[in-house]
Amino acid sequence: MKRSKEITIYDIATELNVSPSTVSRALKKHKSIGKETIKKVEKKASQLGYRPNVVAANLRNQKTHTIGVIISRVDRPFISTLIGGIESEAKKKGYHVIFAQSHDKVKLEIENANVLFNSRIDGLIVSLAMETKSYEHFKPFLDKEIPLVFVDRVTETLNTDLVVIDNTHSAYIATKHLIEQGCTRIAHFAGAQHRNVYRNRRTGYENALTEAGLPVDNSLILELKHLNSEEGYKAAEKILTGKNRPDGIFASNDTTAVSVIQCAKKLGIKVPEELAVVGFNNDPICTIIDPALSTIDHPAKQMGELAARQLLEHKSDPIIDSSSTIKLKTSLIQRASSTRKK
Amino acid sequence: MKRSKEITIYDIATELNVSPSTVSRALKKHKSIGKETIKKVEKKASQLGYRPNVVAANLRNQKTHTIGVIISRVDRPFISTLIGGIESEAKKKGYHVIFAQSHDKVKLEIENANVLFNSRIDGLIVSLAMETKSYEHFKPFLDKEIPLVFVDRVTETLNTDLVVIDNTHSAYIATKHLIEQGCTRIAHFAGAQHRNVYRNRRTGYENALTEAGLPVDNSLILELKHLNSEEGYKAAEKILTGKNRPDGIFASNDTTAVSVIQCAKKLGIKVPEELAVVGFNNDPICTIIDPALSTIDHPAKQMGELAARQLLEHKSDPIIDSSSTIKLKTSLIQRASSTRKK
Repeated sequence: MKRSKEITIYDIATELNVSPSTVSRALKKHKSIGKETIKKVEKKASQLGYRPNVVAANLRNQKTHTIGVIISRVDRPFISTLIGGIESEAKKKGYHVIFAQSHDKVKLEIENANVLFNSRIDGLIVSLAMETKSYEHFKPFLDKEIPLVFVDRVTETLNTDLVVIDNTHSAYIATKHLIEQGCTRIAHFAGAQHRNVYRNRRTGYENALTEAGLPVDNSLILELKHLNSEEGYKAAEKILTGKNRPDGIFASNDTTAVSVIQCAKKLGIKVPEELAVVGFNNDPICTIIDPALSTIDHPAKQMGELAARQLLEHKSDPIIDSSSTIKLKTSLIQRASSTRKK
Repeated sequence: MKRSKEITIYDIATELNVSPSTVSRALKKHKSIGKETIKKVEKKASQLGYRPNVVAANLRNQKTHTIGVIISRVDRPFISTLIGGIESEAKKKGYHVIFAQSHDKVKLEIENANVLFNSRIDGLIVSLAMETKSYEHFKPFLDKEIPLVFVDRVTETLNTDLVVIDNTHSAYIATKHLIEQGCTRIAHFAGAQHRNVYRNRRTGYENALTEAGLPVDNSLILELKHLNSEEGYKAAEKILTGKNRPDGIFASNDTTAVSVIQCAKKLGIKVPEELAVVGFNNDPICTIIDPALSTIDHPAKQMGELAARQLLEHKSDPIIDSSSTIKLKTSLIQRASSTRKK
């Protein structure tokens, strides 16, 4: 395929009748160049189809003003809201956001990390794939001192900034609520236990039971691999038709909690009278399902904003070297699915 | 901030004790280099944190094996499914996919086009923002002969490949179904009329009415700007409490159709007996809302696959110069929300 000639700053300079160094500095928004000139140069550069990296002698000194984001799947409302938060904070600071999905596969996460590394992003925000257990693929970012922040599903092994919610406490208040509503046999739909969020949710659930003097019964704890609706429905069927039927379920996400309600309806088990249900995230489906689903309000937007802020502030302030963990508060949203006592 | 030295092919060559040109060719997967060597070079390149563009004299000859995608918002199930289709086809051909959201704003779409252009993607797939009315920002891709495919929300003005569904026919069968169920006053929630998908859906709706000898009543056609749930609820309230209450509604998406059902429930209007409702897309909420929502099954995954195929096939076959339009079939999924006659 025939390729047209690559446009350089010299072409832009010729067209505008200014010096190439003026063009170069204008494209970097250098203080010495007036706003009008910057505007004029940017317009011409765009008209000519100029691609800035061509002239970059040292690529790492050249900012792309782009943040890369790797998330599991965008079809989860929590994730799309998180991305929205990252975008909104990035925009304020003149940054753009591109993202890639890992589909919860470590292989895809590694490939995406490479792609984004090579596209010379100025920073990377990651919410880890369900599968990921080693973190070598993020090393190139650390080696090149490209800011890296983990959010929600994080690892503490890389000495980076982390933004998380208090998963243990969230699960504790969800489970405590079920106990207060009179549940004594509370099941838990857990996620992969090597992921901080699911491990901590299970801990919070167990803490609440223990505090209330209720036994932790492993037959009531189901570990789901993907926490999707099919898996949720199957788990619900298993536990609701078994010998030891629970009178309450705390699920690690809303998707599987909704499956529980749908399965209970099918089996003729009354929610909340015979089975009280609490989910996690406050997805839009919570108010579409009938009865409406009680859940934990996940501050996903704020989490995204904070992750972007950490990334960009550390970026512009190289003195800060220490990593920090920001932990966000959550709250219980009580709806019909768990309300036995008014 | 201290930056470590940029790794070059010379560093890789030294480490592996091969010539720099071997490294260069290995990284391009040149036929003259054995598979083993390619693997060895790639492994070392990754270990050292090598970023390929540093050595690229002519950037346009260097493939990044990355497809860029600009979509409106990822929090729409249709969009996340479409993305899944693009990814699955891209993966088969060894390509990676990165995305950016326009949030239906033309300004963001322009910025994203620039960001992706500068990150040297090998091709771009776009589903247009609701707002977009001019298409200048895609010109740089055409000028550089970077493959460009529009999908779902498209423009015919740029002479590129398009992948769409037959929106007119889809709306026609949805409306015809409502007529067959006994509806005689059918309202339509339309989207922005400069976007092909919404214009065509309105045409299909009008065609079905006309064919059945029913009048096209403009007071029953509401044009919504964003087609989100808030807007849908307000529109539903307006039309269901007005003088001229419809007995059927065909909405341009499921989000607003679900709002119609929720509003009707609140107002004590029985669905489907007093109001039959059909949406569009077959989002997961269709089977969570009660009564379940009849809708048009949108082949979003297939659409994404075809868009990626068009992009990559035209890319590897420069002889093909003509643009093509692929139109996909849809079907009606009849559920309780519109079933009056069994």
